[in-house]
Amino acid sequence: MSVSDVKKQEISSQRDEKFSTRRATVPALEEILYEPIKVLDHGFVRVIDYMGDDSAIVQAARVSYGKGTKQVNQDKGLIFYLMRHWHSTPFEMCEIKFHVKLPMFVARQWIRHRTANVNEYSARYSILSKEFYIPTADNLAAQSKQNHQGRGAALTGPEAERVLHLLASDSEQCYDHYQEMLNEDQAGNKLDPNKDGLARELARMNLTLNYYTEWYWKVDLHNLMHFLRLRADNHAQYEIRAYADVMIDMMKKWVPIAGEAFDEYRAGATAISKTGTDVVKRLIKGEKVTQETSGLTKREWEELAKTLQIS
Amino acid sequence: MSVSDVKKQEISSQRDEKFSTRRATVPALEEILYEPIKVLDHGFVRVIDYMGDDSAIVQAARVSYGKGTKQVNQDKGLIFYLMRHWHSTPFEMCEIKFHVKLPMFVARQWIRHRTANVNEYSARYSILSKEFYIPTADNLAAQSKQNHQGRGAALTGPEAERVLHLLASDSEQCYDHYQEMLNEDQAGNKLDPNKDGLARELARMNLTLNYYTEWYWKVDLHNLMHFLRLRADNHAQYEIRAYADVMIDMMKKWVPIAGEAFDEYRAGATAISKTGTDVVKRLIKGEKVTQETSGLTKREWEELAKTLQIS
Amino acid sequence: MSVSDVKKQEISSQRDEKFSTRRATVPALEEILYEPIKVLDHGFVRVIDYMGDDSAIVQAARVSYGKGTKQVNQDKGLIFYLMRHWHSTPFEMCEIKFHVKLPMFVARQWIRHRTANVNEYSARYSILSKEFYIPTADNLAAQSKQNHQGRGAALTGPEAERVLHLLASDSEQCYDHYQEMLNEDQAGNKLDPNKDGLARELARMNLTLNYYTEWYWKVDLHNLMHFLRLRADNHAQYEIRAYADVMIDMMKKWVPIAGEAFDEYRAGATAISKTGTDVVKRLIKGEKVTQETSGLTKREWEELAKTLQIS
Amino acid sequence: MSVSDVKKQEISSQRDEKFSTRRATVPALEEILYEPIKVLDHGFVRVIDYMGDDSAIVQAARVSYGKGTKQVNQDKGLIFYLMRHWHSTPFEMCEIKFHVKLPMFVARQWIRHRTANVNEYSARYSILSKEFYIPTADNLAAQSKQNHQGRGAALTGPEAERVLHLLASDSEQCYDHYQEMLNEDQAGNKLDPNKDGLARELARMNLTLNYYTEWYWKVDLHNLMHFLRLRADNHAQYEIRAYADVMIDMMKKWVPIAGEAFDEYRAGATAISKTGTDVVKRLIKGEKVTQETSGLTKREWEELAKTLQIS
Repeated sequence: MSVSDVKKQEISSQRDEKFSTRRATVPALEEILYEPIKVLDHGFVRVIDYMGDDSAIVQAARVSYGKGTKQVNQDKGLIFYLMRHWHSTPFEMCEIKFHVKLPMFVARQWIRHRTANVNEYSARYSILSKEFYIPTADNLAAQSKQNHQGRGAALTGPEAERVLHLLASDSEQCYDHYQEMLNEDQAGNKLDPNKDGLARELARMNLTLNYYTEWYWKVDLHNLMHFLRLRADNHAQYEIRAYADVMIDMMKKWVPIAGEAFDEYRAGATAISKTGTDVVKRLIKGEKVTQETSGLTKREWEELAKTLQIS
Repeated sequence: MSVSDVKKQEISSQRDEKFSTRRATVPALEEILYEPIKVLDHGFVRVIDYMGDDSAIVQAARVSYGKGTKQVNQDKGLIFYLMRHWHSTPFEMCEIKFHVKLPMFVARQWIRHRTANVNEYSARYSILSKEFYIPTADNLAAQSKQNHQGRGAALTGPEAERVLHLLASDSEQCYDHYQEMLNEDQAGNKLDPNKDGLARELARMNLTLNYYTEWYWKVDLHNLMHFLRLRADNHAQYEIRAYADVMIDMMKKWVPIAGEAFDEYRAGATAISKTGTDVVKRLIKGEKVTQETSGLTKREWEELAKTLQIS
Repeated sequence: MSVSDVKKQEISSQRDEKFSTRRATVPALEEILYEPIKVLDHGFVRVIDYMGDDSAIVQAARVSYGKGTKQVNQDKGLIFYLMRHWHSTPFEMCEIKFHVKLPMFVARQWIRHRTANVNEYSARYSILSKEFYIPTADNLAAQSKQNHQGRGAALTGPEAERVLHLLASDSEQCYDHYQEMLNEDQAGNKLDPNKDGLARELARMNLTLNYYTEWYWKVDLHNLMHFLRLRADNHAQYEIRAYADVMIDMMKKWVPIAGEAFDEYRAGATAISKTGTDVVKRLIKGEKVTQETSGLTKREWEELAKTLQIS
Repeated sequence: MSVSDVKKQEISSQRDEKFSTRRATVPALEEILYEPIKVLDHGFVRVIDYMGDDSAIVQAARVSYGKGTKQVNQDKGLIFYLMRHWHSTPFEMCEIKFHVKLPMFVARQWIRHRTANVNEYSARYSILSKEFYIPTADNLAAQSKQNHQGRGAALTGPEAERVLHLLASDSEQCYDHYQEMLNEDQAGNKLDPNKDGLARELARMNLTLNYYTEWYWKVDLHNLMHFLRLRADNHAQYEIRAYADVMIDMMKKWVPIAGEAFDEYRAGATAISKTGTDVVKRLIKGEKVTQETSGLTKREWEELAKTLQIS
């Protein structure tokens, strides 16, 4: 992970300060507050701030005057009930803010989730660091043969080497030229004092999409869960899944009961189509069903068979 | 203000608890946290939670690693710059949650601001209290003669008395019938043990729009300021302005520098149309301009003349 | 349905005009364009405008240059695929605008769906008509005994009569007093020429929540389907379901293929929790499962048993 | 502009078809429907669909039954009134859909406007074309010396040549390597039949940010105007301004009256801070004001002096 010593020092000073508050506070999340958790080769996610906890969900659902909690048991029951019945507004009452360092091609997928607040590092204003993403050997996947949008097995041998070489050398070269065009080093010092540099907002276009950017990203719990369900899914690209996986852990430290409900009714749940539901009814009755008699397409049948372990 | 003793006790217990946190904390806002501030006859606003402070705006704008603050002076300069140039995203990085008790006709205006999170007390599920809004004599305004959407002077004498009587007696009667239809008192006890009651989701339709409801309302600072600018404006209905005024004070306790910038570039600022801008240029050059030679409509001219003290 | 003759004439003139367009056009929806379809006693829904059709979904998903359609079969396959895999953005590319007349307590539920555009009839500016909702005998439901938020059987006999009487007489009386306070009839003529009237924005608070309001409501297809799935559900209050049911028909006239996909993967689909999925696997394997051995709560077990016809 | 003959043919066939509709139709916009209007070297914007016209704004504001229009004069008055008083919801009742081809660094700015619908060409699924943006000599601006986020004069001579060479040759090389890693040409044919290719979702990261992407972008008129006001502003980067300028023309063909109101109250209007307003009052009274006595910062004073031609 690429966090300079100066930045580590800034993080560490911020972690050292403690304040007194009347607000709902989550010790398990405080524990990791501000700490960057490594993702990919140079990326990270760190929690910057949060609002609310499990009991804030209950409090909002009940529009209550005090803490809103009854017995732990009842609170858990209510949170599970709300999740099961798609009552999304009480989950919107919790908010979390992340600082994320991520490759630009990942950022471009991420930003499609619009119900969040974002402040990105500005390459119009500042100079980007020389940090780019290179996949590990494991993740250097071939194009899938079945799925236009998927990955096959990892490339190996000279093919893999060639790809790694190209990615790295083009990234290096593009950055060197970026700097040459800017006529500045990263500290903003002129390289050739007799020349003007190209405007930063233009020079940045010479960088490749594996360059890292950074942003502050703030989202409510409902929309975070929606993001995590889609982006931790195995259809999602590995590089964004790596972030989602880390963020699921953070979410569970923050709101452990809602996190359990998320596993039960979202991440681990099964959505079965109308036709699929009929198939399940027949199977439960002991009827023999095949793809041909199911009314499902081959692909849907395979997915259902796999999910429900139909032999 | 109508907060029962039981509820006061709940609020008070919550205020008594203190926790240790690494998060940005605002002592001036902590001071009033959870405390209901009275609005209208039975309404209130209270701050339930918040995320961020003035320096969180700076931190997000700089995508910084530590506190993000430089000297107080520089921070203030940046916040003013951001506000002046409509850079809204750094202000979205602060979030606040209110508990509001308000008449339903006010709630219906309020909810038109969609970029916020809301949990309202459910009259499908629970029984509403017998609390309704009656304007004070001062606020019992006649219909404006100039403006279809405005108020004139307050009604007085027997006219005012008659209106107050009608409002109060209809509110009383509708509630009594609400309770009769429910066949329940507020505690949920059956009134006539031998009868069924009408479903709560139906009975509620017999209440008048001055009945109070309650909600949790959570919003980011940018959208809060947008709401406050429109709803504290003198074109807004008095009853919602009363809430906005209280919330502006709360906002200024929370983010005093952003609050100053709000006064300078939003609440206290002047928007001058293209044609109006030409008028101002001519006036500054010492030219005599009248409505006829201004190119403005009568109404626009009057507004400009008033704002800029053109004689 | 309460649409005056003058308004019927306006609608009819608008229906008579035809224009030539290059835009995607749906004859089945054009057929009913502008026509109010009755809902409840005085309400209606009518389609005012629309953008796109089934092929616009395909066109956007493919970011295509021409119509974006291949063979009908392939298009249908793609739409079903998108719906199944929660690719929501192509469905957002279709937009529809409704004019709805609805009781205010229904409007208050409806408006909780925030991802839509709304213009409501302004009772600050204009005078509301004397039109209020009275349930039919069938819909005069008692409070459910199982479910705090539900309905039981319809009230009957003198109990029903009493409720209907109260609803109607309070509505009548509140309106009469509304008019008296305004000192205006609906046409805006003064009732007593020597008196001022109360400001409209205040007088409206004397009306009960069963009074009808009207709005223009515009939404994209993805968010419309989300609304319809929740509001046509049998947990939704009957009075809003009545609107959702009519709008589902309209949606199917507009985008028949997406409408089929909606039935298959949303309205008719089954969401099974993680624990429930394990139960289904065991049942399919022929294992005997009871609530006690299922790991599900009693209520969840009952719902699953009902949905999957587990005996 | 890079639109292949096949695509031109598809566009042309779609333009040839005409349908009959009852919907509000705008002949001036129909005229250019589907036609790509060139922007930058290979980009374009084209209008794909629209909903509503000037009278739809009026119709929604009045929640009317027929066309909602009175005399043209009154309609214009109402639209100007709504714009002047920030009544945004009636403008949200018009919707427009664009197909845009734009460099990725522009796309990354654009997408920060979240209140819109987007479908982007997927480089996970498909292969990107070899099309990249190279600024014209005029637009090859040096970094501004005053403003961290701005441009100075254009580079010239060997410096300009060197920059143009670097941008073009890096773009070329990165694309060649992209293709080599994919082991596919753009038609999807294998280059070396004995090799696997890298997954498309990975290979794309080797492209530079000046590569063109495409998307469908749908937005309501209110949010479009907000976008255009910010992006046609002279603080915006030239490359996105080029798009905004073209889209302002399109917007004015679509809703000419709202377009005029936009010029009057948004694009051409002046926002004057609270302190600035006091300065203007003093100037109008004939008082001599300098930066020192104005209470404004140097920069604000200069901007005000320039806007209002204070000498």
